[in-house]
Amino acid sequence: MIVGTEWLVEATGCNPTHLRDESLLRGIFERVTSDLGLKAISDVWHTFPGEAGVTGMVALTESHLTCHTYPEHKIATFNLYCCRTRPEWEWESNLRSILGASAVSVTKIERGASNPKSKIQNPKSRSVGGDA
Amino acid sequence: MIVGTEWLVEATGCNPTHLRDESLLRGIFERVTSDLGLKAISDVWHTFPGEAGVTGMVALTESHLTCHTYPEHKIATFNLYCCRTRPEWEWESNLRSILGASAVSVTKIERGASNPKSKIQNPKSRSVGGDA
Repeated sequence: MIVGTEWLVEATGCNPTHLRDESLLRGIFERVTSDLGLKAISDVWHTFPGEAGVTGMVALTESHLTCHTYPEHKIATFNLYCCRTRPEWEWESNLRSILGASAVSVTKIERGASNPKSKIQNPKSRSVGGDA
Repeated sequence: MIVGTEWLVEATGCNPTHLRDESLLRGIFERVTSDLGLKAISDVWHTFPGEAGVTGMVALTESHLTCHTYPEHKIATFNLYCCRTRPEWEWESNLRSILGASAVSVTKIERGASNPKSKIQNPKSRSVGGDA
């Protein structure tokens, strides 16, 4: 029984300054939720001290959206979990544009199945290695 | 560059009453964070109306823990994302015991890599199918 779809997004080679800009990251969340017609219930944002990154989480009526950023590694990761069918968001072009990412990979996973299927959507990426 | 590890957990055949019991689910979060030495920053809990389920999210200094429950399908899904190495939590035995799950599958994914590797930890489960 599939109860939802989760997109796991890895953006690498990002501008480190952008990865510490909470308002910029909030703006990404607003675009995702607006573009996909999602409804926020409540959110949590935390900017870690010093040169560290930002954590953002929003509970949606359709499940959740999260991000964690690692300015020291120029990496941001996102999770979008939707319990009902939604169109694809243009993660690659949007994160290249907004965060200056040099590469973006998107892995799509069906949730609820005892043997979840995953699929990397970026055609330049290799398959997920199943080795259990 | 690997910046964290995420465990995606699917518990099926659960007791539907337990899947609407927010305090029981909060207890699972407390056990996970306590057992693994994780530190909560802030959380969000939402019980949907009628016969629907519960959403829980906690931002951790080590990343995040989330759950969504679907009493109508006897399913609960969890995500645990840790940016530093942690021991494995005994998802299968704990969720069988606490939620009455008849089956639990755990998929472990390394985050931050442009080609994320995933691995289903339950030896009875098949491999994740990489078909991109």
